[in-house]
Amino acid sequence: MIDACAALGYGGITFWRRELSGREVEIGDRVRAAGMQVVGLCRTPFLTGPLALPSDQQIMDDFYLAIDQAAGLGTNVLTIVTGGPEPGTKGVLDSQKILADRVARAAPYAADRGVNLALEPLNPATAGNRTCLMTAADALNVCDAVGAENVGVAIDVYHVWWDTTLADTLARRAQGRILGYHLCDWLADTTDVLLDRGMMGDGVADLRALRDAVESAGYYGLCEVEIFSAENWWKHDPDEVLDTIVSRFRACC
Amino acid sequence: MIDACAALGYGGITFWRRELSGREVEIGDRVRAAGMQVVGLCRTPFLTGPLALPSDQQIMDDFYLAIDQAAGLGTNVLTIVTGGPEPGTKGVLDSQKILADRVARAAPYAADRGVNLALEPLNPATAGNRTCLMTAADALNVCDAVGAENVGVAIDVYHVWWDTTLADTLARRAQGRILGYHLCDWLADTTDVLLDRGMMGDGVADLRALRDAVESAGYYGLCEVEIFSAENWWKHDPDEVLDTIVSRFRACC
Repeated sequence: MIDACAALGYGGITFWRRELSGREVEIGDRVRAAGMQVVGLCRTPFLTGPLALPSDQQIMDDFYLAIDQAAGLGTNVLTIVTGGPEPGTKGVLDSQKILADRVARAAPYAADRGVNLALEPLNPATAGNRTCLMTAADALNVCDAVGAENVGVAIDVYHVWWDTTLADTLARRAQGRILGYHLCDWLADTTDVLLDRGMMGDGVADLRALRDAVESAGYYGLCEVEIFSAENWWKHDPDEVLDTIVSRFRACC
Repeated sequence: MIDACAALGYGGITFWRRELSGREVEIGDRVRAAGMQVVGLCRTPFLTGPLALPSDQQIMDDFYLAIDQAAGLGTNVLTIVTGGPEPGTKGVLDSQKILADRVARAAPYAADRGVNLALEPLNPATAGNRTCLMTAADALNVCDAVGAENVGVAIDVYHVWWDTTLADTLARRAQGRILGYHLCDWLADTTDVLLDRGMMGDGVADLRALRDAVESAGYYGLCEVEIFSAENWWKHDPDEVLDTIVSRFRACC
């Protein structure tokens, strides 16, 4: 995959932890030797909610391990998928406080290793157990609560395309705080909010307006294409998918 | 169902159009004879998007028919589920303009028949084809664009529970404009965003805070319990469901 991306002129790759198998240093070196960068690492363990590990100690240990793996890869961005409402609580505000506390405790450890932490808001469809941040404003509120220079936000088209206040929020509050921009599209007839993402151009997201919005907040880093698509794109030939991403990126994004 | 609700002291019932079969006057009279009110009628046809009828004429004709049916039932609330992004457009803003135009054209017809129109924001998970209003703020924006006294909003726990700006939005902007309040709960492990709603108390929505928020905007009307639950509650004995609703409403809402 590294060689295939480099051959097509991709600028970098973001990895998932499950792909590393302890080889993060080797993988990072190989990406750079191919002329690309490691854009980021997905993702921390859930830091709150019913899918998180059972104890604070276990959650924080795995959080620190994810930071070590990001540093091993030589990337400066680790994405945080927060987890949902803490069992026994109602709504998301109590969980946002727990989240802010855990991120604040890990931020100095990450800073010492050159790693920035990107809080990613997820679509409200996943707010039962996968996120307590549903909008960029939620994520920026937690950034403010943490107050660490190496904590910012990641903006994923799939999760925020519907938010009619997004451009205003990013322009007013996100200057210099966007650490990643994730691309795909929202299909009009989405059947599964986790694994039915669309290729750019096949859906209803206003991708040009979204790009303008992240650039208005000063983000000019790489755009990460992230298309979970169990029934469609994951079944295509990988080279065809990489070619399609390039042509759609140029045409639509 | 009318007799069963009356026996348990329910204050009213909201009907769906598909349940009427041309008998709306008879149904409305029977509800009132049982000592209850017809709280509302669900719902208009989709007014925008890929699931709407193919022409403006057909959409408006069915919209007027729904208004006639609400008037026939003797209810003063018709709920609008808007429909999603108009084919050929990106994002939701163009569709909100089309929506505002169609609602503005129907509003006088509804006013003449004593019917108020309630714009209901839906969960962003459904923004591909079922809604172009994802938040109370979106719905109030369209209300403002329409500018008719008989156009307001409906607040459904299922769709807005995650919105951390909701209470502020309702307190500042929704005074006297909430026409309906719909209850259920969001299950932590929701498997289907349309048909896997939870009974109040079984999920993560902060139902007391949500009730406070609608009351802060002056809504003291009936609370409508609306639990689409294909795999759970719809399979239970109806009397058991009605009893459970009463006990959970008293305990949680």
